[in-house]
Amino acid sequence: MVKIIVDAFGGDKSPEANIDGALMALEELNDIEITLFGDEAILKEKLSTRKFDESRIKIVHAPEIITCDEQPSMATFRKKNSSLMKSLDALKDDSSYAGMVSLSSTGSLLMGSVMKVRKIEGVIRPACLPLIPTMDGGVVGVCDSGANVDCSKEELLQFAIMGSTFLKCCYNIESPRVALLNIGTEEIKGDNLRKETYPLLKECESINFVGNMESRDLLSGKYDLVVADGFSGNVLIKATEGTSIEFLKMLKRMCTKSLKNKMGAALLKKDIMDVKENMNPNNCGGAILIGLKKIVVKGHGSASARSVKECIKQVYELNKNDFINKVTSTLAKTI
Amino acid sequence: MVKIIVDAFGGDKSPEANIDGALMALEELNDIEITLFGDEAILKEKLSTRKFDESRIKIVHAPEIITCDEQPSMATFRKKNSSLMKSLDALKDDSSYAGMVSLSSTGSLLMGSVMKVRKIEGVIRPACLPLIPTMDGGVVGVCDSGANVDCSKEELLQFAIMGSTFLKCCYNIESPRVALLNIGTEEIKGDNLRKETYPLLKECESINFVGNMESRDLLSGKYDLVVADGFSGNVLIKATEGTSIEFLKMLKRMCTKSLKNKMGAALLKKDIMDVKENMNPNNCGGAILIGLKKIVVKGHGSASARSVKECIKQVYELNKNDFINKVTSTLAKTI
Repeated sequence: MVKIIVDAFGGDKSPEANIDGALMALEELNDIEITLFGDEAILKEKLSTRKFDESRIKIVHAPEIITCDEQPSMATFRKKNSSLMKSLDALKDDSSYAGMVSLSSTGSLLMGSVMKVRKIEGVIRPACLPLIPTMDGGVVGVCDSGANVDCSKEELLQFAIMGSTFLKCCYNIESPRVALLNIGTEEIKGDNLRKETYPLLKECESINFVGNMESRDLLSGKYDLVVADGFSGNVLIKATEGTSIEFLKMLKRMCTKSLKNKMGAALLKKDIMDVKENMNPNNCGGAILIGLKKIVVKGHGSASARSVKECIKQVYELNKNDFINKVTSTLAKTI
Repeated sequence: MVKIIVDAFGGDKSPEANIDGALMALEELNDIEITLFGDEAILKEKLSTRKFDESRIKIVHAPEIITCDEQPSMATFRKKNSSLMKSLDALKDDSSYAGMVSLSSTGSLLMGSVMKVRKIEGVIRPACLPLIPTMDGGVVGVCDSGANVDCSKEELLQFAIMGSTFLKCCYNIESPRVALLNIGTEEIKGDNLRKETYPLLKECESINFVGNMESRDLLSGKYDLVVADGFSGNVLIKATEGTSIEFLKMLKRMCTKSLKNKMGAALLKKDIMDVKENMNPNNCGGAILIGLKKIVVKGHGSASARSVKECIKQVYELNKNDFINKVTSTLAKTI
C-alpha cells in the first residue's frame, strides 16, 4: 500500500473537493491508502454520506485552518494544529508516507514544508513547478511560479536544474528544452537579473538551455521548462490561464446567443468540447514543490475533486519513479 | 495643418506598412501633413506606385536603420543618420511638428526620445503605455510595459500618476481605476518592490487606487490602468496577447477542419469575425511614451498599415487634446 496524505482543508471548494478527490483516487488506484487531515467531526460527517472502501481512508484530527490572507510566517508558526501543519508533521515523522497533497496558499505551504520536511542538501530555496497544457497537446513547466518572489541568479540556475531533472525523471523527456522567461529573445535583453542569469544557464552543462522565451510563446510547444523568478512566473501563468478562461467564456456566450448560433455550435460541439478538455487546468493536477526531501504537490486553490484526484496520482507517480532520490543525486552532482 | 512625423523604417513590415498607414491616415484626416523619415530613394520608389495627395507628404532622407537586436545605447549614439534619430531631431528642433510615430524597438525609441526630446520636469523615467482591448469592449492601459525593466517604487508611483492623467485627458475617464500588478489581491502579497509601492499608491490623492490585480484579471474590464515594472508588465501583455493569438488560431483550425465544421462555422461567422475584430491589436493603435516633452507613439513591431494609421490618429488626438500641457501641469501639482 502506498500511503498518501491529503490536507483536507484549504482550497475554495474544501473540504468537499478534497474528500471527493481522495475517494476518486481510491477508485482509480488499487494500492493506495489516504489519510485525510482536518476537523474530524466535519470529515466524518461528510464521509458518512459517501460510499468508499473504509479500510483505505484514515482521518487525523487537525481543527485549525490556514487561510490565503494570512502571513505565511505567522500562520505556520502559530497554527500548529492546522490541517496543513499537522499534515507536514506526519510527512516528516512517519517515513511510511509517500507524499502529500495540499490546496493551501503557496506561501504557507512552502514555508511550512521548509520548516518541517526540510530542503534537499545544497538547495537555496525550493520552488513551485506547475505544468501548463500547451496547444500541441503537451505540457510546459514553469519554475518558479510564485513561491519565491525575490530571486537571485543562483536560485534561477537551481530552478533550471531541479525542473529539468523532474521532467527527465518523471515525464521521460530525455533532454528538456529549458528557456529563460524574458522580454525579448535576444541574448542582450532583460533586466539585471536576466542579464546575470543568462550566462549561468548557457554555461551549465547539465541542462539543455535553448535561450530566452517571450511570454507569448508559453503555449507554443517549443519549450519544456520555463525558468522565472516567482513574481514574473506567477504573472505569466495567471495571464495565460486568465486569457484562456475569458476565451472559453466568450466561446460559450457566442454558442448560446441565438438559435442560429446554437445550430452552428451543435455542428462544432465535439471540437469545442475537445478544446475545453485540453485547456482544463483540472486535468493537469497540481504543482510540484521541488527541492524538498519529501514529495509535496500543491493543488490549485480552486481545484475540483477531479483535480485533487490528479494531484494524488502525481504523488503516486513521483513515488513510483523514485523522484526524491533521483533529484537528490542529480543535484549532488551539479550544484 | 497638423504636421506629424512617421519613422518609415523599423517594424517587421516596414517601410510598406509605414507608408501605407501614412497614406490611409491622409485619407481619414483632412487637416494633417505627414513627413516620412527614411531612405529617400526607397521611399520615392515605393510612393511612385501609390496614389495620394502629394502636397501633404514630405520626405526627409535618413539612410540608416536601427534594428531590434542592437543595444539601444550604442545604436542611438552611433546611428545619427537613422530614420529614428533623424525623426527625433526634427521633433525636437521644429516646433511645428505635433508628434511622431515609430515602430522601432522600445529600448532605442525610449533612449533616443530621452536624449533628444527630453523628459517633462520631475519625471524620473518616461514609460511605455499600450492599451489592450478588454472582453467588455473597453480598453485597459499597462504602464510600464517594457521600457523600464528595473524600477523603483517612486517610478511606479509616477507611472500611476502619468497613466491616470493620460486616461483622464484623452479617454474622458473621470476617475481611472488604477491597480498594481501583483501575485495576489491581498495587501500583504508580493515581492519587496510591490510591498514598498502599495502604500505609496494607497496614499496618493491624485489617483483612484483600487488595490492589487492578478494578471488573470487584465481583460476583465474592472481596471483602467495597471501599474507594473517594465519586466512584469511586458510578461503580462505578451502572455495575454500570445494566448489570444493561439486561441484565434485554434478557432480557425476548428472551423476549417471538416465539411461539418465548416457548415457550423458558417452559422457562427458573424460572431467569430466580431471576436477577431475585438481582439485585433491593430485596432488599438500604439503605445504612448508618457513623460516626454513631445507626443511620441510607438507602434507594434509587427504593426500593419492599418495599425500605423491608428498610431497617427492617436498623435492627432493627443495633440488636439493638448496632452503634453495637461500632463505637465498635473505632474507639477503632484510630484
